[in-house]
Amino acid sequence: MRKSIATVSVSGTLAEKLHAIAAAGFDGVEIFENDLIASPLSPEEVRARAADLGLGIDLYQPLRDFEAVPAEVLAGNLRRAERKFDLMRRLGADLLLVCSSVSPDGIGDDDLAAEHLHLLADRAARHGIRIAYEALAWGRHVSDYLHAWRVVQLAGHPNLGTCLDSFHILSRGSDPIGIEAIPGDKIFFLQLADAPRLAMDVLQWSRHYRCFPGQGGFDVAGLVTHVLKAGYQGPLSLEVFNDVFRQADTGRTAKDAMRSLLALEEAVGLAPQIPPPVIPTGFAFAELTVSESEPTGSEPEPTGSESGPGDTDGDRLRDLLAALGFARTGRHAAKPVELWEQRDARILLNTTGTESAPERAASVPQSPPEPAAAAPESTRVAPALAALGLESPDPAGSAARARSLLAPVLPRERGPDEAALDAIAAPDGTRLFFCRTDRPGPLGHPGLSDHPGQRDQAGLPGDVRRASWVGDFGPREPVAGPVSHIDHVALTQPLHHFDEAALFYRGVLGLRPLPSLELPDPYGLLRSKAMASDDGAVRMVLNIARVGGQHVPWQHIALACDDLVTTARGLRDARPDLLLPIPANYYDDLEARHDVPPELRELGLLYDRDEHGEFLHLYTITVGRVFFELVQRLGGYRGYGAGNAPVRLAVQHAGTRG
Amino acid sequence: MRKSIATVSVSGTLAEKLHAIAAAGFDGVEIFENDLIASPLSPEEVRARAADLGLGIDLYQPLRDFEAVPAEVLAGNLRRAERKFDLMRRLGADLLLVCSSVSPDGIGDDDLAAEHLHLLADRAARHGIRIAYEALAWGRHVSDYLHAWRVVQLAGHPNLGTCLDSFHILSRGSDPIGIEAIPGDKIFFLQLADAPRLAMDVLQWSRHYRCFPGQGGFDVAGLVTHVLKAGYQGPLSLEVFNDVFRQADTGRTAKDAMRSLLALEEAVGLAPQIPPPVIPTGFAFAELTVSESEPTGSEPEPTGSESGPGDTDGDRLRDLLAALGFARTGRHAAKPVELWEQRDARILLNTTGTESAPERAASVPQSPPEPAAAAPESTRVAPALAALGLESPDPAGSAARARSLLAPVLPRERGPDEAALDAIAAPDGTRLFFCRTDRPGPLGHPGLSDHPGQRDQAGLPGDVRRASWVGDFGPREPVAGPVSHIDHVALTQPLHHFDEAALFYRGVLGLRPLPSLELPDPYGLLRSKAMASDDGAVRMVLNIARVGGQHVPWQHIALACDDLVTTARGLRDARPDLLLPIPANYYDDLEARHDVPPELRELGLLYDRDEHGEFLHLYTITVGRVFFELVQRLGGYRGYGAGNAPVRLAVQHAGTRG
Repeated sequence: MRKSIATVSVSGTLAEKLHAIAAAGFDGVEIFENDLIASPLSPEEVRARAADLGLGIDLYQPLRDFEAVPAEVLAGNLRRAERKFDLMRRLGADLLLVCSSVSPDGIGDDDLAAEHLHLLADRAARHGIRIAYEALAWGRHVSDYLHAWRVVQLAGHPNLGTCLDSFHILSRGSDPIGIEAIPGDKIFFLQLADAPRLAMDVLQWSRHYRCFPGQGGFDVAGLVTHVLKAGYQGPLSLEVFNDVFRQADTGRTAKDAMRSLLALEEAVGLAPQIPPPVIPTGFAFAELTVSESEPTGSEPEPTGSESGPGDTDGDRLRDLLAALGFARTGRHAAKPVELWEQRDARILLNTTGTESAPERAASVPQSPPEPAAAAPESTRVAPALAALGLESPDPAGSAARARSLLAPVLPRERGPDEAALDAIAAPDGTRLFFCRTDRPGPLGHPGLSDHPGQRDQAGLPGDVRRASWVGDFGPREPVAGPVSHIDHVALTQPLHHFDEAALFYRGVLGLRPLPSLELPDPYGLLRSKAMASDDGAVRMVLNIARVGGQHVPWQHIALACDDLVTTARGLRDARPDLLLPIPANYYDDLEARHDVPPELRELGLLYDRDEHGEFLHLYTITVGRVFFELVQRLGGYRGYGAGNAPVRLAVQHAGTRG
Repeated sequence: MRKSIATVSVSGTLAEKLHAIAAAGFDGVEIFENDLIASPLSPEEVRARAADLGLGIDLYQPLRDFEAVPAEVLAGNLRRAERKFDLMRRLGADLLLVCSSVSPDGIGDDDLAAEHLHLLADRAARHGIRIAYEALAWGRHVSDYLHAWRVVQLAGHPNLGTCLDSFHILSRGSDPIGIEAIPGDKIFFLQLADAPRLAMDVLQWSRHYRCFPGQGGFDVAGLVTHVLKAGYQGPLSLEVFNDVFRQADTGRTAKDAMRSLLALEEAVGLAPQIPPPVIPTGFAFAELTVSESEPTGSEPEPTGSESGPGDTDGDRLRDLLAALGFARTGRHAAKPVELWEQRDARILLNTTGTESAPERAASVPQSPPEPAAAAPESTRVAPALAALGLESPDPAGSAARARSLLAPVLPRERGPDEAALDAIAAPDGTRLFFCRTDRPGPLGHPGLSDHPGQRDQAGLPGDVRRASWVGDFGPREPVAGPVSHIDHVALTQPLHHFDEAALFYRGVLGLRPLPSLELPDPYGLLRSKAMASDDGAVRMVLNIARVGGQHVPWQHIALACDDLVTTARGLRDARPDLLLPIPANYYDDLEARHDVPPELRELGLLYDRDEHGEFLHLYTITVGRVFFELVQRLGGYRGYGAGNAPVRLAVQHAGTRG
C-alpha cells in the first residue's frame, strides 16, 4: 500500500524532513501546519521540492476548533478555512484534516456540527478539496471515532469523510471492530501510531509518547485489519509525536518509521516481498575490540607505575577469560583476532583496537542525504563489545530479511581464503554476523557482498564457497569447562534509539520483547528491555542509561554455567581479585526475604527467583566497558536477575570512583 | 526545626550522599533501604560516618507489605521485621517506616491491620524501636492519611504512630486540615515533597516527578502549618524521587533541598533568621562577554576570508548595538569593559573574552566536599550573557538574603577607586549584581567583601564608601533613542537544574513563576518558565532545551521600545541584514487567525495577544550565543510571545546549518 508519514514525526527543518522521508522510501507526506509556518520555503517551493523527491502531499493538517460553534465564531472560522484552501492550492494538497473541536466555544450538538462541516465541505469542493473529520481522543464533544463517523453521515457531503487515527481509537479503549461498519470510501485517511501503555492524561500521552507501530503496546495491526476489511484504499500514514524522535537524527527516524510500516504490512499479510524471519538458534561468538597499546582500565593506574605488556587491556581480558576456563584455540589467519573457546561459548579478541564505530559506519553503503544514518552517537572506547555472531539456520536468509527491513548490510573485506559472513549493523553500531558454526563447506547461499543485488543475479559468483567462520582460525581442539554457552549479552543503546533498537531486533531477528524495566543506578536510572527467541536460545538485553556525566556505558556477556556454586567456589579460591565484591548488606536483606543457603553470602553469589525457577549469578570486574556474568538458571527461570542490577551498578560505580 | 532528608533524594553512593547532606547543613537523614543494601559500608560504619558528619539517622525506610496478611504470610513478615530491627540496632536508628500494604495478599480489614501493627510495635518495643505507619497514595486498602491514623488508633500501642507524607496526601486531593485532629505526639514523622500537577498514574508520578517544596504545584507550606498546629515536634524531612535529581550533582541537589526547606520554614513563619526578600526594581545592566581575538559567529566564515578587526564578535556586537540605537558612553577605568547605553537600557561589553564559567566558579568560596557545586555544566562560549545587574533598593540586603538561601556570594577583585557591588552566582553560573544605579555615594551599607561576616562587625569598614557602579565608567552623557529599558532576559539553564533555578530566583529575588511551557524546536523541545516581579519591572525567562547534538543554547536580551513599528521600519531600511527573517508562511497563518495590519508582514514583526493586550516583537541575528529582541507591550500584555518561539527557533537553526 501507499506509505506516508506526517512531517511532525521526524526532527529537522521542513526541507530536511522531506529529504529524509523520501530517502526512506515513503510515497507521500502529511504536511503538519507548524512545520510549514516555520519554513522559509513558500508553499509552491514545498510542492516542487516534494515532487522532485517523488513525494505526494497526501494531507494538510490540521484545521482545529471549526465545527459546532456560535454563529459569530463560524464566520471567522470559514474565513480561516478559505485561507487554508488557498494555501493548499499553492501546496498542491487536496485533503484537509479537521480535528474535532476542543474549544470551550464548541456546542455539543451533532446536527450543528454536521451543518457546519457540510458548509465547510461545500466551500472545499469549490477548490477541489476534500475534508477528513477526525475524533480527537480529548475532543470536547466528539471524542469517539464512531461519533465522528455519525457526524460525517449526518452532514452527508461527498467531499466529507472521516479520518481514523489508531492512537485516538486505541488510547480510549474503543473497540476498533466498529471500523468495519464504515464504508471504505468514506474513510478518507488513516493515521497510525502506537504508544506504550501509560496511565496518564491522554493529551500528554499523545503529544509526547506516541511511537511507531510495533514499538508500543497497542494492537495497531489488528486495527489496520479492520480498516482493510472496510475497503480502505488510501495510504498507511504515520503520525507520531514523540519527545525522543524530535531530538533524534532525521534520516534514522525516517528509516525506523519505514521499518515499522514494513513490519506492519507483513503483520497484516500485505508484504509478501519481505523474506520471512530466520530465528537465530544461538550465539556463535561475541567479539571484543581491545587495544594492546593503551590500557583503558576502569581502575586508575598508580602514578609512576610501569606499563609493561602485562598491563594492556588485551592481557587483562586474556587473564580474565583464562580464569573463567576459556582457552585460546586459534588466531585468525589474516587479522589480529584471537579465538577463545569453552565448550560452545566463543569469544573473539580483536586486538586492532583502532576500529572506531564512526569508521565502521563510514564503510556502510548509505544513500546520499543521510551519511550518518548508521553511525552510533557515542564514540566507542575499547575494550568494547563490537560484534555478535548469531547462529542462523540460513545466514543468507537472515541477511536478506535484515536488508529488506532496512538494516545496513556491511561489506566484508576478506582474503581469498576467508569464510564469507553475512553481516549487518544494529542501530547502536554493533555488527551482527549470521553464522553456521557447525556447518562448514558450501551451502548454496552466496554471501552478500559489497554490491547489493549481486546475489540476485543468475548463477553463483566465484566466491560462493562458504566455509565455517571458525575455519579461519586454523585447527582447534575442543575446550572443556564449566561454561557451556553464552546465555545472553547486554548492549548499551544510544539514548535516542531505544525504541528503534527494540523494533529492529524484533523485526530483523524475530526476538520477542519483554516489558521495559527501570532500575535505579546511583547516578540515574537504567532502562532495560530484554528480548529473546521463543526457545531462549538467543537472549539480549538492551539498556539505556539516563545518568549524569560520570556514566560509563557498560556492556556485558553472560555465560551459562552447569554448576555455578562449584565454579564460584573455585574462582573465589583462585582469583578473588576478578570478582565484583557484593556488599554484606545485600545478604542481610536477601536472607531476611528468602530462605537461602549461607554459601551464597560466602561465595558472593546473587540470587533471584520467578514463578518458573531460581537464578544464581555473579559478575566479574570490568575491563574498559566490558564485564562478564556467570549465570545458572534453575528450573526454568526466565529472567535476568534485574532486581540485583542496582547493587551491581552501585559497586561498579564505586570501583570507577576509587 | 530539625531538618532531614531521605538518602533517595540525591544521587551518588551512600557515602557521597551522607557527605553532601551534611555539607548542606542538614541535621539528619532517612536511610533508604536500597541505598544501604548497595553500599559496601556496614551498618556500623554508616552509623559512625553519619555521627562523624553530625547527622542523626532519623528513620530507616521502608518496611513494605507487612500488615493485614494471612497468618502464614505474617510469620515470614515478622521474621523479616526482626532482621530489620537487628539492622537498625547496628545502624543506631530507632524509627522504622511501615508503608501501607500494596500486596495482593493484603486483606481489607482494619482490625486485622491494627492487630498486626500492634504485634509489630510490641516486637519493636523490645528493641527500643518505634513504628511510623504511613498511607501510600496507592495503598491497596489504606491509601488515605486519616485511614492510616484510624488503624494506628485501633492498634493503640505507644510504639506505634503515623507518618505523614505531603505527596501522598496532596496527590490524592485529600484535605490536610484533618491533620489537626491527630495528636502531635502520635505524628512520629513528617515527609515532605512537592510535585508538578500532572494527570498521571499516582505511583509513576510519585516515583519520577516529585520535587522539593516550592518547585511544584502543591501547597506544602499549608500542609506543614496544619502539622505544626497539631503539635508535631519532629523533623521536617524531604523525601523526593525525581529522575532529574537522580542524575544531578549530589552536592548541588543537597543544597537545593536545604534552600527549599529554608524557604518553607520562612513560609510557615519559622525562619526569622532569613532576611526578607528585596524585590529588584529593574535591570541595571546586562553584561556580555566577548572575545576580540577569535570570532565565533553563527554563520560559517567563507574559506579564505581575511579576519580583520571588523570581524571580531566584539565588533559585530558593537555594530548591532549601534544599529539598535545604543552608544558607547564609557569604558571601565580598570577593566576591558565598555558601557553601551540607550535611555535606561545598559549593556556591558566585557572584551576579556577569556573568563570561562568554571574559572568563575573556582573563585566562589566552597565548602570542601563539593568543589563543583556552583559550576555550570555547559562550557560557556563567548559571546555569552555572563552577568546581570539588578536594581535593588537595598543591595546589601539583597546579597544577605541570597547568602542565607545558600547562593554562592562572589568575591570582587576591585581597585581602590571602584564601586563595591554585591554579587552572587545563579545556578547556571550567571553572576547577579545588586546595584543602585541612580544613587551614587555613601549608602550606609558596606558591600559584602571577600570575608563573609565582615559586615556584621561593629562599625563600618574603611571602604564603605559606595559609589554607583556607573561611576567606574567615567563621565557620561544620556543617550536618547527608541529603546527605553531591558524588558526581560532569557537564560539557558543546565538540563539538570531547571527546578533548582526556578526555586532560586523565586526564593532569592522574590520573583513569581508562571507555569512552564513546552515549545517545539526543530530538533527537540524547549521547556520555558517565565518569572517576574509583581510589577513586571524584572522579568526573566528560564529555558532548557531538550534537543539533539546540534543544539546551540541561545540567550537573549529583550529591549522595550516605545514605538516598535517605527523602529522596525527604520531598521528594515537601514540594516535589514541584522534582522532575523520571518517566513512569509508565518504571516499567511497570522492573517488567517487575526485581523492584523499588513505592515507586520512588511516589517517582519511578530504578533501575539493575551487577555490583557497585544505584543509586537522582532529578533536580531545571533552573535555567538546571544541575540536581541525588540518588544512593545500594548495594553497590559503579560506574556513573552512564546507562541512565536518555534518560528524563531526554526529560522535560527536554519541559519546555523547554512
